[in-house]
Amino acid sequence: MHRTKVRVVEDALDANNTIARANRDDFDRDSVTAVNFMSAPGAGKTTLLERTVTALDGVRVGVLEGDVEGSMDADRLASLHVPVTQLNTAAGFGGECHLDANMVRSALPELPLDDVDLLVIENVGNLVCPAEFRVGEDARVMVCSVTEGEDKPLKYPLMFRTCDLVLVNKIDLLPHLDFDVEKLLANIEAVHPGVETMLVSARTGEGVDGFRGWLENAVARSGAPV
Amino acid sequence: MHRTKVRVVEDALDANNTIARANRDDFDRDSVTAVNFMSAPGAGKTTLLERTVTALDGVRVGVLEGDVEGSMDADRLASLHVPVTQLNTAAGFGGECHLDANMVRSALPELPLDDVDLLVIENVGNLVCPAEFRVGEDARVMVCSVTEGEDKPLKYPLMFRTCDLVLVNKIDLLPHLDFDVEKLLANIEAVHPGVETMLVSARTGEGVDGFRGWLENAVARSGAPV
Repeated sequence: MHRTKVRVVEDALDANNTIARANRDDFDRDSVTAVNFMSAPGAGKTTLLERTVTALDGVRVGVLEGDVEGSMDADRLASLHVPVTQLNTAAGFGGECHLDANMVRSALPELPLDDVDLLVIENVGNLVCPAEFRVGEDARVMVCSVTEGEDKPLKYPLMFRTCDLVLVNKIDLLPHLDFDVEKLLANIEAVHPGVETMLVSARTGEGVDGFRGWLENAVARSGAPV
Repeated sequence: MHRTKVRVVEDALDANNTIARANRDDFDRDSVTAVNFMSAPGAGKTTLLERTVTALDGVRVGVLEGDVEGSMDADRLASLHVPVTQLNTAAGFGGECHLDANMVRSALPELPLDDVDLLVIENVGNLVCPAEFRVGEDARVMVCSVTEGEDKPLKYPLMFRTCDLVLVNKIDLLPHLDFDVEKLLANIEAVHPGVETMLVSARTGEGVDGFRGWLENAVARSGAPV
């Protein structure tokens, strides 16, 4: 009796990565640079985007807005005349606490990829699960607010470890907090040596120029601008 | 041919609720009042507990500390000579973003339930999934920081809707924020009409007396004090 040789296909069950690759192929085909934008609830993602998306030099921005419910953030960005698509994880996805590749894929037909150089995917506010799901992004940016305490990199290491840029937001509040920025930066460095960090205030605009430059460079590196 | 009558057992697959009921039975047997304590990352749960757990009138407190990784919060509370058990969701539970009834059950043998009137279960920092899993608690308390913005009840309604008390924390920062407390309270009322709210500052201690009184009453209502 012959033994049939069984081929082991690694990663065969990881549908998420398969779909993320398909998303990435679609982004590449349309020369779109995709950024997965993550943070805890209320860290300031949307306010940072309001300060950024209309002021990028020669870069056309689109936003995919992920929330459990509602479209408040999408409405804020749409009022700036930026193309925004809302993805609610409560509607059809069971109230998920993160975006995954399939949710993003389901939104692609609604996105004007032809007219966009940079797609910002604003994830659900959460420091755990969003880090576990690739959605086809070229880069990951996370926002960490100084009001959250210096210990967050040690408590949520995967999020900090899988990011390309950490924005330390709300630095305008530093005079009113018992907060040690150097300690936070040391904790970030401990879990992700060498990762780029920027101190910013979405409220006052301090440091936001640096983030705009980072996004412009990310698009230029992908060779996306039409 | 006879038709066999099929009995529909509702909820049969909801192992979490079954185990939560078993936890609750164990808490009741030992006259322990259990509080599920939830918030976004960095909202101030642990600092509020530091202000509370050693100052309750005639109430012996124990803490079950839930984190993805590490034991920093547990160490902070243990230094106050409060019995603390650490539960890491990364170790054996796959890095879960919440506690569920089975995780809590696995920690029960480590907890000195005989010597405790009030068990505070500090959940993983997250506004989505912790709200979906009962762990056997008598009451749910959530902390919402004024730095997170007024819109959070509308974006994470299940969390606010399933709570018995909402602590609005970090009110010492109000003079430095563009934040409308009345708007937040109206949004809380919109998703959970009638829910009790308290304005507190874990940093200055303002309003924390009210939370201590609430916990003492919760224990008294359960008839727990020995």
